[in-house]
Amino acid sequence: MTKTVAIQGDQASFHDIAAKRLFGDVGRVYCDTFARTFEAVTEGKADAALCAIENSLYGSINEVYDLLLAHQLKITGEVFLRIEQCLIGLPGTKVDNIKKVYSHPVALAQCAAYLDTTLAQAEREEYHDTAASVAFVKELGDPTIAAIASREAAELHGLSILAASIETNKENYTRFVALSKAVQPGPTNKTSLVVELGKAPGSLYAFLGVFAKRSIALSKLQSRPIVGKAWHYIFYVDLEVGDNNAFKEALAELESLDCTLTVLGSYKAGESANL
Amino acid sequence: MTKTVAIQGDQASFHDIAAKRLFGDVGRVYCDTFARTFEAVTEGKADAALCAIENSLYGSINEVYDLLLAHQLKITGEVFLRIEQCLIGLPGTKVDNIKKVYSHPVALAQCAAYLDTTLAQAEREEYHDTAASVAFVKELGDPTIAAIASREAAELHGLSILAASIETNKENYTRFVALSKAVQPGPTNKTSLVVELGKAPGSLYAFLGVFAKRSIALSKLQSRPIVGKAWHYIFYVDLEVGDNNAFKEALAELESLDCTLTVLGSYKAGESANL
Repeated sequence: MTKTVAIQGDQASFHDIAAKRLFGDVGRVYCDTFARTFEAVTEGKADAALCAIENSLYGSINEVYDLLLAHQLKITGEVFLRIEQCLIGLPGTKVDNIKKVYSHPVALAQCAAYLDTTLAQAEREEYHDTAASVAFVKELGDPTIAAIASREAAELHGLSILAASIETNKENYTRFVALSKAVQPGPTNKTSLVVELGKAPGSLYAFLGVFAKRSIALSKLQSRPIVGKAWHYIFYVDLEVGDNNAFKEALAELESLDCTLTVLGSYKAGESANL
Repeated sequence: MTKTVAIQGDQASFHDIAAKRLFGDVGRVYCDTFARTFEAVTEGKADAALCAIENSLYGSINEVYDLLLAHQLKITGEVFLRIEQCLIGLPGTKVDNIKKVYSHPVALAQCAAYLDTTLAQAEREEYHDTAASVAFVKELGDPTIAAIASREAAELHGLSILAASIETNKENYTRFVALSKAVQPGPTNKTSLVVELGKAPGSLYAFLGVFAKRSIALSKLQSRPIVGKAWHYIFYVDLEVGDNNAFKEALAELESLDCTLTVLGSYKAGESANL
């Protein structure tokens, strides 16, 4: 039973919204970094962590993939969130009068086209968190200063949404994974694993064949370098299969292959019907 | 014939050293960003660009992979460089007295263990380029301030190497690729390509099979999201094969597969004997 979730970011940040979607109104441990959310679970300060692992525009968040390998936590779930960015300011703020915009660098980058045109006169200032930049704009109390954050952050701090959906590309989704010390009970239909393959040519082909011949589909394949072994890679693989017989057979067959495999977790695939 | 090379960074930066290794003493077009190096070639201001594409610790440089897709340049060569970071200051500077260290954020990160221990008392300041941070320290003329950069940057600016090889992990190599408007003549033994696969399960397995059955080895596979198509990926693939018959046969077979393929270039593999 998950009673507290560690997230990177503040109340009404996108991590906070995603945590609410997956866990409901459970307690939060707000952290500065992804590493601290992993530590919070390892040290027993939170039952679970929720970490963004991939964005449909930016790609994989390498830091989180590396943390998965460095820690012994299990992936127990996932959730997808459409990232809608809003321009937020004091009530009565006129967009034409805005001279400065605060937000997280990724949010500023996601709204580059809007900032380049409608807000061409405004300076961009980086802030450590989207929701915190809204609190900061409220504190400044200056109607020439705005923030970029979620709709929820505007509501939480009682500021106005001056413009909604200002992100350049609307196909802006983030995938978050939930992490715990132990596997959670319940049905699963997706499995994440990480594999280090032998150096023989065709080793990736042979590895994928074990799944292909059982009609187990890949939904993701991501390579990462192995620290200390230049130009050797590990692969993170997401499979559309739970902890069932076909998967167990595949694992058994992989034992005869030259590879080192770790199952990161089997879990229920996130709702992506709205994608 | 390459007479001028566009690079990101200044004289004696790691890009500059890599360009010298591959092209010798040809002219340079120094650029602020990777995007500008691509533009310099497209606009005819340089014959070639040299861009870091991957580091053995950090992984792939996504921005450069995305630029490869956005532009029509060809990969015409590659070079590997071991990245040795040095602590550099005014002659006579004592390491114990250093209060501030300037460098590029990646260089600061690569030297984290040294900075955390030997230089625990010093503040870290980010600078846009390693070599430029050395020029800046010279300009400041303050023996309590140091920079982190290449050996060559210390020599160029006449400053002293206070400590050499201060990077945390010695297996710190960067791969650079050369880019030109047209294919260069000469023998090739490596090919880079990018492919968008159909959605059918097993499509990646079928794609890799075309090369595996001809004993064409993969040296790299990197996935990237397709902007505007959430959770669809393209794959960048490096193959240990030049523009020869086996490769031509493979390309012909791929025409019957549900995939869209672009050959980014065939070139001579970089020397990696010292890895």
